[in-house]
Amino acid sequence: MAHIEILSIGNEILLGDVLDTNSYWLCQQFTRRGSRVRRVVQVGDDVEEIAGEIRAALQRQAGLVLTTGGLGPTDDDLTLQAVALALGRPLGENEEALAALEERYRLLVAQGFLSDGTITPPRRKMVTFPEGGEPLTNPVGTAPGVLVRHGPTVLVALPGVPEEMRAIFESTLAGRLDELLGRGCYAEWSITVGAGEAALAPLLRQVVRAHPDVYVKSHARRIDPRSRIHVRVTLSRSGQERREVQAGLEEALQDLLRALEAARISVEGIER
Amino acid sequence: MAHIEILSIGNEILLGDVLDTNSYWLCQQFTRRGSRVRRVVQVGDDVEEIAGEIRAALQRQAGLVLTTGGLGPTDDDLTLQAVALALGRPLGENEEALAALEERYRLLVAQGFLSDGTITPPRRKMVTFPEGGEPLTNPVGTAPGVLVRHGPTVLVALPGVPEEMRAIFESTLAGRLDELLGRGCYAEWSITVGAGEAALAPLLRQVVRAHPDVYVKSHARRIDPRSRIHVRVTLSRSGQERREVQAGLEEALQDLLRALEAARISVEGIER
Repeated sequence: MAHIEILSIGNEILLGDVLDTNSYWLCQQFTRRGSRVRRVVQVGDDVEEIAGEIRAALQRQAGLVLTTGGLGPTDDDLTLQAVALALGRPLGENEEALAALEERYRLLVAQGFLSDGTITPPRRKMVTFPEGGEPLTNPVGTAPGVLVRHGPTVLVALPGVPEEMRAIFESTLAGRLDELLGRGCYAEWSITVGAGEAALAPLLRQVVRAHPDVYVKSHARRIDPRSRIHVRVTLSRSGQERREVQAGLEEALQDLLRALEAARISVEGIER
Repeated sequence: MAHIEILSIGNEILLGDVLDTNSYWLCQQFTRRGSRVRRVVQVGDDVEEIAGEIRAALQRQAGLVLTTGGLGPTDDDLTLQAVALALGRPLGENEEALAALEERYRLLVAQGFLSDGTITPPRRKMVTFPEGGEPLTNPVGTAPGVLVRHGPTVLVALPGVPEEMRAIFESTLAGRLDELLGRGCYAEWSITVGAGEAALAPLLRQVVRAHPDVYVKSHARRIDPRSRIHVRVTLSRSGQERREVQAGLEEALQDLLRALEAARISVEGIER
């Protein structure tokens, strides 16, 4: 399955001014549909840094590179310029996006939100796309998202304002993910056991060895080493029906339960 | 000034199971002391991926590479192995860390928190360091942090549990940052103005051109384009006293205020 890379752009993240909840939310969305996010990178508003990250993701043959941030009208919004640089494509106005932007500003003036709806150069920048880019309608803001296909990789640029990022994802992108990434499915169980991480380690290793595509992760919920451990068992697979994925996960879980019983580690709860 | 790179390690981050607040907190700490975080990368529990990121950071001549996560006893805790691989150094037990670990487990047994304090192989893994690594005492957990010097770069590995990561940072690392990174200082002002981002863009550009090391960032707080904009003006400098940094920032702020006045954009608040 082609993997996904997420690039969160903005100096405000690196300054510790803004917590990047966008990548967290996106990781949840992709996991739930059976896709695999391989890395998330947070970089500043620097065109070379951004372009360098995109180039590296293309070299890793990512199926989807999704950027957030840097699509606005200000001078430090550099994402589309960086995408164009990384892909070696010229920038040009997108007619469809320009028409939608003009309509949006007409509406904002008509509704009394703005006194001047002129498409100034900073506003025009928001619809100046790398060649081949298609707009992803922004239902709650002015800057559209952009989708560009490049070899085996799809690049998607979304705004950094969380409401706008989510709105474009949900209204425009989500329905196309099967086509863009292939179908996928995901199943998850979690169990809580009465043992320390150290005692659990060899048992989890055993399960992972027997089921290499199942993901087993233990989380210590407290810093007291005697406290209970929460174990999350998940399986993402592309090209399978839900019941097949669930059956694959069930096998791994039964193996884990048998191993816990043999080691006399109590199971305090299972959430399916 | 040598830059900092942060590497957050753990599949649970990429699965959207855990929000990476560690890197956010660390970015705040470094910004406040005048250091520059250049990138944050979140990768999974994969020794090759982690080692690859560390190698790339060494090539970029990072002053500090700080990792969080992957220091525990379980099989998917792979950070020290990855650091050893990236640096081409063998792994070996650290005597000082082993003695501290033995003492810690003795205490946990004596206090009735654990029935068996044996240093099992999974527990021993926590004190198996890349050659040349020195332990950073963990005041609230069992896995110590590790500091390794490599050419111009300092590598620091901290646990992923936020309480442990912060405790090691505050008790052991913070006092050594001047020695490790050089002294630095930071100043910040923020102003709220009554204008849209698009109207503000050319004025901010003007200020950044005149003061290249000052960081000016506008945040739209709402998606309504008429709403007020919050502008953050910050300056980080190494090797300067606080009053010099503050004076540098004051100049940039006065320029911005003059530009806003000339453009008849109202200033609704200044926070110094």
